[in-house]
Amino acid sequence: MERKILLNDCPDEKGLIAKITNICYKHQLNIIQNNEYVDNETGRFFMRTELEGIFCDEPFLTDIDQALPKGSRRQLIDSKRKRIVILVTKESHCLGDILMKAFDGSLDVDIQAVIGNHDNLCALTEKFCIPFHLVSHEAKDRDTHEQELIAAIDRYQPDYIVLAKYMRILTPDFVARYPHRIINIHHSFLPAFIGARPYHQAYSRGVKIIGATAHFVTNDLDEGPIVGQNVIHVDHTFNAEEMARAGRDVEKSVLSQALHQILEDRVFVQGNKTVIL
Amino acid sequence: MERKILLNDCPDEKGLIAKITNICYKHQLNIIQNNEYVDNETGRFFMRTELEGIFCDEPFLTDIDQALPKGSRRQLIDSKRKRIVILVTKESHCLGDILMKAFDGSLDVDIQAVIGNHDNLCALTEKFCIPFHLVSHEAKDRDTHEQELIAAIDRYQPDYIVLAKYMRILTPDFVARYPHRIINIHHSFLPAFIGARPYHQAYSRGVKIIGATAHFVTNDLDEGPIVGQNVIHVDHTFNAEEMARAGRDVEKSVLSQALHQILEDRVFVQGNKTVIL
Amino acid sequence: MERKILLNDCPDEKGLIAKITNICYKHQLNIIQNNEYVDNETGRFFMRTELEGIFCDEPFLTDIDQALPKGSRRQLIDSKRKRIVILVTKESHCLGDILMKAFDGSLDVDIQAVIGNHDNLCALTEKFCIPFHLVSHEAKDRDTHEQELIAAIDRYQPDYIVLAKYMRILTPDFVARYPHRIINIHHSFLPAFIGARPYHQAYSRGVKIIGATAHFVTNDLDEGPIVGQNVIHVDHTFNAEEMARAGRDVEKSVLSQALHQILEDRVFVQGNKTVIL
Amino acid sequence: MERKILLNDCPDEKGLIAKITNICYKHQLNIIQNNEYVDNETGRFFMRTELEGIFCDEPFLTDIDQALPKGSRRQLIDSKRKRIVILVTKESHCLGDILMKAFDGSLDVDIQAVIGNHDNLCALTEKFCIPFHLVSHEAKDRDTHEQELIAAIDRYQPDYIVLAKYMRILTPDFVARYPHRIINIHHSFLPAFIGARPYHQAYSRGVKIIGATAHFVTNDLDEGPIVGQNVIHVDHTFNAEEMARAGRDVEKSVLSQALHQILEDRVFVQGNKTVIL
Repeated sequence: MERKILLNDCPDEKGLIAKITNICYKHQLNIIQNNEYVDNETGRFFMRTELEGIFCDEPFLTDIDQALPKGSRRQLIDSKRKRIVILVTKESHCLGDILMKAFDGSLDVDIQAVIGNHDNLCALTEKFCIPFHLVSHEAKDRDTHEQELIAAIDRYQPDYIVLAKYMRILTPDFVARYPHRIINIHHSFLPAFIGARPYHQAYSRGVKIIGATAHFVTNDLDEGPIVGQNVIHVDHTFNAEEMARAGRDVEKSVLSQALHQILEDRVFVQGNKTVIL
Repeated sequence: MERKILLNDCPDEKGLIAKITNICYKHQLNIIQNNEYVDNETGRFFMRTELEGIFCDEPFLTDIDQALPKGSRRQLIDSKRKRIVILVTKESHCLGDILMKAFDGSLDVDIQAVIGNHDNLCALTEKFCIPFHLVSHEAKDRDTHEQELIAAIDRYQPDYIVLAKYMRILTPDFVARYPHRIINIHHSFLPAFIGARPYHQAYSRGVKIIGATAHFVTNDLDEGPIVGQNVIHVDHTFNAEEMARAGRDVEKSVLSQALHQILEDRVFVQGNKTVIL
Repeated sequence: MERKILLNDCPDEKGLIAKITNICYKHQLNIIQNNEYVDNETGRFFMRTELEGIFCDEPFLTDIDQALPKGSRRQLIDSKRKRIVILVTKESHCLGDILMKAFDGSLDVDIQAVIGNHDNLCALTEKFCIPFHLVSHEAKDRDTHEQELIAAIDRYQPDYIVLAKYMRILTPDFVARYPHRIINIHHSFLPAFIGARPYHQAYSRGVKIIGATAHFVTNDLDEGPIVGQNVIHVDHTFNAEEMARAGRDVEKSVLSQALHQILEDRVFVQGNKTVIL
Repeated sequence: MERKILLNDCPDEKGLIAKITNICYKHQLNIIQNNEYVDNETGRFFMRTELEGIFCDEPFLTDIDQALPKGSRRQLIDSKRKRIVILVTKESHCLGDILMKAFDGSLDVDIQAVIGNHDNLCALTEKFCIPFHLVSHEAKDRDTHEQELIAAIDRYQPDYIVLAKYMRILTPDFVARYPHRIINIHHSFLPAFIGARPYHQAYSRGVKIIGATAHFVTNDLDEGPIVGQNVIHVDHTFNAEEMARAGRDVEKSVLSQALHQILEDRVFVQGNKTVIL
């Protein structure tokens, strides 16, 4: 008995659930968990089905593909542990939380490597017996630096690239290379405080809540599809540094939680939004 | 074109989703929204399907019933607005919130009457042109009082009875008369502070959070299936009265939110728990 | 025995707490509650002292004023209930919550009148025996309309003007007339979604939290000092209308809570920020 | 220039703030931050004053002691980093969070040692170059085990002992040895689910929120003064194991946050409650 996940993302039409679940039934696959959603604005149908049984992928998928309308994006995903590469700069809290959760099994993930543009987090990474690569940006133009990054990343063939407080902007070429596979944590409740130094912006504006946003990276800076957000309350006694300190716990938990959902193949991207089933 | 909701609650077995959605498809009923859940502990299957189309209830339900296993509880619910009767004592905030939300349409409900064992809330109720009945408990034994309550309630044939800070305990006979149809708001995060004066208990214990719980009423006091809960943070500066004042907003929003889910037929009761689809 | 509140807002210097509390002690005034804060960025000292005793205001304040540095803003406030006028357009939930809380005493305030630019909320207001004035903006230029508003407001001499979903922009002249005395509820977690239709903006952006902000009104639209904010979680199943519906509870509780703090004289304005003691 | 913290906890009487701040002023000590609270139920006064200047402790404290009423508990605390010993069993998340926060400086603390009754967390602890001691309870009576624990703890002379998911009950003798110096994290929102296996209790009861409580340990199991609590929302899809997994983030953040407040000398214990200034 194996477990696999069937993802469907296609134009909505009558009878889709019946057709898909019929095929699962016909192939003697048991539905462990099933979630669907129809987006009325776009007329698009999303479905995530956890299946258990003895899989003959080819005939099963042939049946599925015949049942689905044109314009479908369909995947059958096995339960292999996903591989990630983590990019960092100097701050340790998001990296530390992922390392710790992978260590104790809370996060079912295979951290292939950590890559930093500074070497501050080398010692921490290596405590967990994970390779750390320094790919410094200094004295290089942006393209050269990104070519080195890509080389460092690609030899691990990761499913996802996690920006755990990686503080450099990525070029469209880099982003296009890994579509919907780069996850970033932004330290504000987007779209508030887009851009640099959000805690300083928050302090200047005198807000009473600060937050964090995990999102897929697209070409439009801080505009990619949001996976998760959360906030904490602050008051007049917090300056920008204290906001930053208080914000660390929410940053790391928002990133880990988003990553958890992505690793369970629950997150569909639709335009600049996500559907999470 | 009509809208109806099909609820299924039955022993789980392979192919249930396929069977049910096939029948909907065969009867040309479009699935607007579908949610299912299998409880692995009890092996029970729950499904809520919002359907749109031209309904011929009898043949449709005959097909559904043939498809379902023994021990199924199945309902097809039309979109008629639900009727409620509200029971109160002296506090106005939960009643006020429901009155206001029915008034502005946030809560799609038909408030048939408000019944109080004191007359404090008569004036408020009548502002909204809803009948108020005083059914005083004074100088009566419990049975006589409940017989009067039942008489007052039953002439309205309500779908649900809402205890909006009704401060008297109901007998098993009363509760048995309206199974899973009485909703209560308890002013603590159950199971903490069962029983009387929860804010005083909370103050004595020195807690840093207080809360509220909306639940169906069963014979076991404060032990009925929980529909919703929420909390707020307090600190050492709150005494019992200030906790009570601060708790009002969370009480009323938890009760209204639970009621909203119940009125949309999203809440299944299973033993002393709820499944909310 | 009377209760009054002493507010101090002055440049910080050594010994201020000692000086002020000494004077209270000398005048036999008991300190019920005392809160101070020094803003290190601006070097400004804020203090709120609840006093109980027999007050001889003149000699007490003479002593206080001699003790304070130049540039002090000092107030001694008696415990008279504050007067407010509420401005509305069509939506009832914020108005309804304030009416209900004034009715049951949760909010210690004297609602003098409600003024609408539409007449939708007349019936609701009058249920609570509070005068409603229609000051329509139709077929009038902005100045004429505001002159009529001012006339309607000023005959009540309110301490504060509450914009409870008043959907028109106020001119600088209007705002300047009531400095730090106009409180608005904005239906987003500012500074996200400044401007019109924030729920539509939120829906388009695909956010996972929506919120509300209570703030003092200044000339810069949506830029005034923030008093309170809160958020709720949403997901992909919410369209703009459902976000608006879900947001109502957080809007009304944020506004009521901010108003509660303002009415207790806890909110100091400093530039575009607030200090809440 | 040095920084110290003056803590006062004494019977309330008129003029206390004036007297204490006068003495600070007289000794040329600048008040960086001052917080007071009077508990009206017990008539007790609490004050925490952060001072900056050149300290002559003896004459300053002589003045303070003469000013305070009988029954005062007064401390002047220097800014030396506090020392802790952490007790663990098998679960790593709370230990991991404290290790990581001490590592990156978010928590200003000196972890002297980690002591486990199992050796599971030895490797994790030693990654951070902190000594780990196994003090197994197996094949020993409770007293012998605790004597060994005490010996292991006392050679480090810690300010506080942190139970980071230490799953054994401590005897009154052990607790009495470290009054108000043992901090525990309990994985429920106390007083709900006192005792063993709270997530299983929560699952059986069908609650919609789960939580965590950080408290000082006293003889009455799970009854000690609460420092902090927080909760997260769950639904019918969570079984006990999933609640436990989801609860880890809230457990670790509640414990770290409580520890942060204790390390900053903000937490006063009064009976079975805390006052946090």
